[in-house]
Amino acid sequence: MNNFPKSVSLVEVGPRDGLQNEKTEVSTQTKVELVNLLADAGHRRIETGSFVSPKWVPQMADSGEVFSLISRREGVSYSALTPNTKGLENALSANADEVAIFGAASESFSQKNINCSIEESLERFAPVVEQAAARGKPVRGYVSCVLGCPYEGEIAPEAVANVAKIMLDMGCYEVSLGDTIGTGTPFKTQRMLEVVTDVVPVSKIGAHFHDTYGQALANLYVALSAGVSVIDSAVAGLGGCPYAKGASGNVATEDVLYMLDGMGISTGVDMTRLLKASSFIMEAVGRKPSSKVANALMESC
Amino acid sequence: MNNFPKSVSLVEVGPRDGLQNEKTEVSTQTKVELVNLLADAGHRRIETGSFVSPKWVPQMADSGEVFSLISRREGVSYSALTPNTKGLENALSANADEVAIFGAASESFSQKNINCSIEESLERFAPVVEQAAARGKPVRGYVSCVLGCPYEGEIAPEAVANVAKIMLDMGCYEVSLGDTIGTGTPFKTQRMLEVVTDVVPVSKIGAHFHDTYGQALANLYVALSAGVSVIDSAVAGLGGCPYAKGASGNVATEDVLYMLDGMGISTGVDMTRLLKASSFIMEAVGRKPSSKVANALMESC
Repeated sequence: MNNFPKSVSLVEVGPRDGLQNEKTEVSTQTKVELVNLLADAGHRRIETGSFVSPKWVPQMADSGEVFSLISRREGVSYSALTPNTKGLENALSANADEVAIFGAASESFSQKNINCSIEESLERFAPVVEQAAARGKPVRGYVSCVLGCPYEGEIAPEAVANVAKIMLDMGCYEVSLGDTIGTGTPFKTQRMLEVVTDVVPVSKIGAHFHDTYGQALANLYVALSAGVSVIDSAVAGLGGCPYAKGASGNVATEDVLYMLDGMGISTGVDMTRLLKASSFIMEAVGRKPSSKVANALMESC
Repeated sequence: MNNFPKSVSLVEVGPRDGLQNEKTEVSTQTKVELVNLLADAGHRRIETGSFVSPKWVPQMADSGEVFSLISRREGVSYSALTPNTKGLENALSANADEVAIFGAASESFSQKNINCSIEESLERFAPVVEQAAARGKPVRGYVSCVLGCPYEGEIAPEAVANVAKIMLDMGCYEVSLGDTIGTGTPFKTQRMLEVVTDVVPVSKIGAHFHDTYGQALANLYVALSAGVSVIDSAVAGLGGCPYAKGASGNVATEDVLYMLDGMGISTGVDMTRLLKASSFIMEAVGRKPSSKVANALMESC
């Protein structure tokens, strides 16, 4: 496990995964400006919105508008979450560059979150992947609860490997492994990745770790040492944790970038510009960033 | 670098290094209660106070009283910082179980912080170590700025190794390597430890990392992999960073413990009891903990 990549592709999930879990409502114009500032900072992969029923996720009801108003940059992929073929149609109309589907590594989480078994959920996504492929759109797969489940506790690495492999076999170009509740620690992360990379190439794996218990960077270090070269993060640590009130959710992009910069691993993202996006959106949601780097650099004397 | 220890000795520095850097003044009784709660939680090494001139560090002016009022537990070492022989005398009168001296790995930091060169500072500490030894008191050495200096930036690992070796040669039983400004990242940590352990046994090294930029746990993981089995931390992440307003200082004991518990590395410290100490002192200083674990566990629904 000493296969550190020379460069890492950061997937910025703040505008979707982040804002979806913020209590303060954010205007369409603010979302658009955030996406533009993130592209300014050098991000090349930005999760921009979600085409889910507004009944379930009112925060993302304006995703179509956001996609239509952003200043598209050459070389930047603006992605959208698409839970079904209707969502896919809307994402295609909005000209999303790529789409994403999701599934859980935990049976209980799947049942409680989307009311069906893991297997059923993957079957339901099959036509989304198929139709996206037919329209030439790349599909990313998200696997949740890879290092723990709020209902089951421990999750077998084999369950993660199984879902990851099915998603890739279905046609996803990459799977993002989510420590949804942030309970992972380094040895568990290492073991999980060992089992998953037995059946899935490490080049097709992204690490999507939450920082609820402050463990994300240590776990990401382990993932990097295993050769993982794609990391999901949210500017300013946007978003909270629905399973722990007041706790942080997504690992902050600034904190990840600080570590990668310090390790000489290139990302193409510039810290100073990223902090502009960070302070912009924190002002909009009216709280301090959960990023320690942002707090230290913004307020340094 | 895969020499993970089976157990780790945690050095709780909250009552001294932590409270010294808090803005809110804390009563003697609160300090006493904090130390007692930390011992209740299973801590066996507690930095309890400092015998420095109250002119320089008014927050620690009552250390003698704190030492006289705590409920001493069998097997717990209550330590004190002693900058000179006068401080040592006071620490001995207070019956501190061990004392500590300090030096910087950065020449500029030494000059700005204690108005003398590194070499001069070590010479000044020689009689403290000698007299402590004569009275049978173990002496710990703190080295600051081991992964960066607020004035010089990068610090050569060789400078750290040099100060660490001198301290051990002088008679310190252990050296605590401090990333005082928290700018360390994993590869730098690894390189520093490689150079230091070339001249100093790893069993005599403690890691004292600050979490100013959120990097402490990733760096501690690297230190553990190098065989380091002593970690300094402060309950709730007490203390701030004098070089970055609003930023966090010492890594939070809860976050370190969460990682170690998850890795199956024993410490003897109990999370539930530790959280009691954490919520007690945070109420006293009137702010939220900078520990992500404390925030998640205390407010979890």
